[in-house]
Amino acid sequence: METVEQILLPEWLIPLSEKEPSSGDPVFTNTAVVIDKGLIKAVGDRDEVLSQYYSDDTLELPNHVVTPGLINAHTHSAMTLLRGYADDLPLMEWLSEHIWPAESKWVNEAFITAGTQLAIAEMLRGGTTCFNDMYFFPDVTASIAERAGIRATVGMIVLDFPTVWANDADEYISKGLAMRDQLRHSALINTAFAPHAPYTVSDKPLERIATLANELDCPIHMHVHETAHEIEESTARFGVRPLERLDQIGLLTHRLAAVHMTQLLPAEIETVASRGVNVVHCPQSNLKLASGLCPVHEMLQAGVNIAIGTDGASSNNDLDMLGELEQASLLAKGASNNPSAMGAFQALYSATMGGAVSLGIDQITGSVEPGKAADLIAIDLSDPSTQPVFNPLSLLVYSASRSQVNHVWVAGKQLLKDRQLTTLDLDEVLEGAKEWGLKIAQNTAS
Amino acid sequence: METVEQILLPEWLIPLSEKEPSSGDPVFTNTAVVIDKGLIKAVGDRDEVLSQYYSDDTLELPNHVVTPGLINAHTHSAMTLLRGYADDLPLMEWLSEHIWPAESKWVNEAFITAGTQLAIAEMLRGGTTCFNDMYFFPDVTASIAERAGIRATVGMIVLDFPTVWANDADEYISKGLAMRDQLRHSALINTAFAPHAPYTVSDKPLERIATLANELDCPIHMHVHETAHEIEESTARFGVRPLERLDQIGLLTHRLAAVHMTQLLPAEIETVASRGVNVVHCPQSNLKLASGLCPVHEMLQAGVNIAIGTDGASSNNDLDMLGELEQASLLAKGASNNPSAMGAFQALYSATMGGAVSLGIDQITGSVEPGKAADLIAIDLSDPSTQPVFNPLSLLVYSASRSQVNHVWVAGKQLLKDRQLTTLDLDEVLEGAKEWGLKIAQNTAS
Repeated sequence: METVEQILLPEWLIPLSEKEPSSGDPVFTNTAVVIDKGLIKAVGDRDEVLSQYYSDDTLELPNHVVTPGLINAHTHSAMTLLRGYADDLPLMEWLSEHIWPAESKWVNEAFITAGTQLAIAEMLRGGTTCFNDMYFFPDVTASIAERAGIRATVGMIVLDFPTVWANDADEYISKGLAMRDQLRHSALINTAFAPHAPYTVSDKPLERIATLANELDCPIHMHVHETAHEIEESTARFGVRPLERLDQIGLLTHRLAAVHMTQLLPAEIETVASRGVNVVHCPQSNLKLASGLCPVHEMLQAGVNIAIGTDGASSNNDLDMLGELEQASLLAKGASNNPSAMGAFQALYSATMGGAVSLGIDQITGSVEPGKAADLIAIDLSDPSTQPVFNPLSLLVYSASRSQVNHVWVAGKQLLKDRQLTTLDLDEVLEGAKEWGLKIAQNTAS
Repeated sequence: METVEQILLPEWLIPLSEKEPSSGDPVFTNTAVVIDKGLIKAVGDRDEVLSQYYSDDTLELPNHVVTPGLINAHTHSAMTLLRGYADDLPLMEWLSEHIWPAESKWVNEAFITAGTQLAIAEMLRGGTTCFNDMYFFPDVTASIAERAGIRATVGMIVLDFPTVWANDADEYISKGLAMRDQLRHSALINTAFAPHAPYTVSDKPLERIATLANELDCPIHMHVHETAHEIEESTARFGVRPLERLDQIGLLTHRLAAVHMTQLLPAEIETVASRGVNVVHCPQSNLKLASGLCPVHEMLQAGVNIAIGTDGASSNNDLDMLGELEQASLLAKGASNNPSAMGAFQALYSATMGGAVSLGIDQITGSVEPGKAADLIAIDLSDPSTQPVFNPLSLLVYSASRSQVNHVWVAGKQLLKDRQLTTLDLDEVLEGAKEWGLKIAQNTAS
């Protein structure tokens, strides 16, 4: 008998170890998951596993379904502090009259600290074990994430114009690379180039990013084809649609995680598929800002990898990945007029493995397989809203709510235990958020 | 000082006593709500109320927002027992190969009892204080609802063909009327005619229902224009679209709650508006079955009263009205390409007063006003996903989840207290649901 750190004995396991379930049923019963040294050491039949491994910390999980942790493939985590600050407005009025002025007035390292902590508290309590962030002071975001024990990819943000973080594209890139260098030994934090969008970054920095990303084998995280306005502006300014411009620059590769992608011609879907570009779908943000509908069903049929993101809390207005993957599935059916579009399996797959692939970390996380990091969640289905249990996967996608996530592990460390955070002081986090809220509200009213 | 049963002192109150907030802000602070003999006796300034009224049961609700209870304006509550039974299938395959066979095999009084109890447990825990039901054995649904203390409108269901409940349209109507007679003294239970749909009820019974509804001043609850197929079939069979046929029969009045309404021509929206027809929007069901998009924004602009329903749990797959009103708002923006469509106030209004109006009970419930029934909910915003608080209404609509509903009152009786049900034994309800689930699953597999 080998002694290990922890053994989980869930009532149901959805490992997502295959892209399409070959057995016909992706849900397994009578299983055990062995966690040791941060990794999944074994997954298998309960009795067999228990005859090989022993742990002082063996957790029976009746009524629980265990899945890979959810991966929020696009967010601006510190924007939790602007949650509900302005809603129900046209995009440009929302941005230029509310969000941008508030950001330019308030965003500093303390804001990022408080906002990221609030975001991580919310994400962990909703089953998110990894998030892909794009915002200012990514070094602060990285250190907060590392301290909380959550996995993250932080964006080396790039813009043409000056902000609190840098003055021009060259400085953004050099600050980003310096951060990347500091984080090179981190087990939890990865980096991605994060040129904001085609309309905010010009060709020269984009060309440099394309070259650097290839040299460093580094992912690229970018808003692309978010609105019809973006397409019109690009056509007027560059003579081509944004995707074509990015293609000319050499950015359309498997390293690109293109966020939103609501405006796509059939030929563009083919290009995206043939180049291996990842698409990060943010359905609630797209609906809330009326940006357009991402043709998820058509892209899945073309073989495109789809990941799911919440976007920032000020355009969603939460970081609830269970809600987001349900929304993705429902909207795919509605938008394609096909009730079989993005079924429950695909929705969960996109929110886990799809995210891992989009960030180039699918060898590390995204499914429950031996050798991968123990990034896991356990969801309690013994709630009236998830009974009776014909199909735990259906319940997880279409019926469960985030409050049913009872336990969360990242790299084998339990960060949520019976809904209690183990690495963050929730009262302190809430106190920090409240103070910022009061300060911002008082200065907005006056 | 007058002694009263209970006084609530919420941090925020959203009374929805006006259709559009004249003050600019529909959220009030420093208020008190006085409950006595099942009714709201007074609503007003905290200090003024406390100088006039005294109660042994005065409840301070810091961090809570109090609103009218949510009204689920369309559901088939007992279908909770078929939650997740079949998903991701085209409508007719889903119905004819899965749902209808299961219903014809399993639906009896015991099924209705267990399924309705499960539904009520779920609805109360999510802040729903009133539901409008259409299913078999409505007398059983009524008695379960009355025992649980929740408000309900039960449908006098009518179909052309025989089911377990009746053999032909005449028998459906007479059984319905007998039930209505038995319930005439009930304080909580109302009735509505519930002809299933234009394609399942022929002209003669519809004419009789139109006459009876006028004579008895009774609402009519009907699926109308749910899918494009329904329109095509009606045009082939009757030479007109369903709405025109219903208009010829005299059914398009303020008494009609027309459910779904995804297929509407501009002229039909005008007709619906001018006749005062109520529209019950079920956004998640429409998306999940890919039925089409209800033009909510256009109807609101035309002055149509919009209510919100979850539909049954087998096409949603939950009875979560907070999720549904968020979905309604997001989808309205996406469908109309207008981020200002169905703002947070309108979404909450539709899910409360809109529902009450659609059921003809807006003199009794739907808002927090003196003289109305004390149908109230208190939602705790001290969760990381609803902080900081710039705007409690935005948080309620776009960020809160059902698990934050801490307290629920119907007719002044507290049915949920710190998330505990007071009139239903949750363990017993779950046990009943589990047994039915096992029985159905075993007989489906074999």
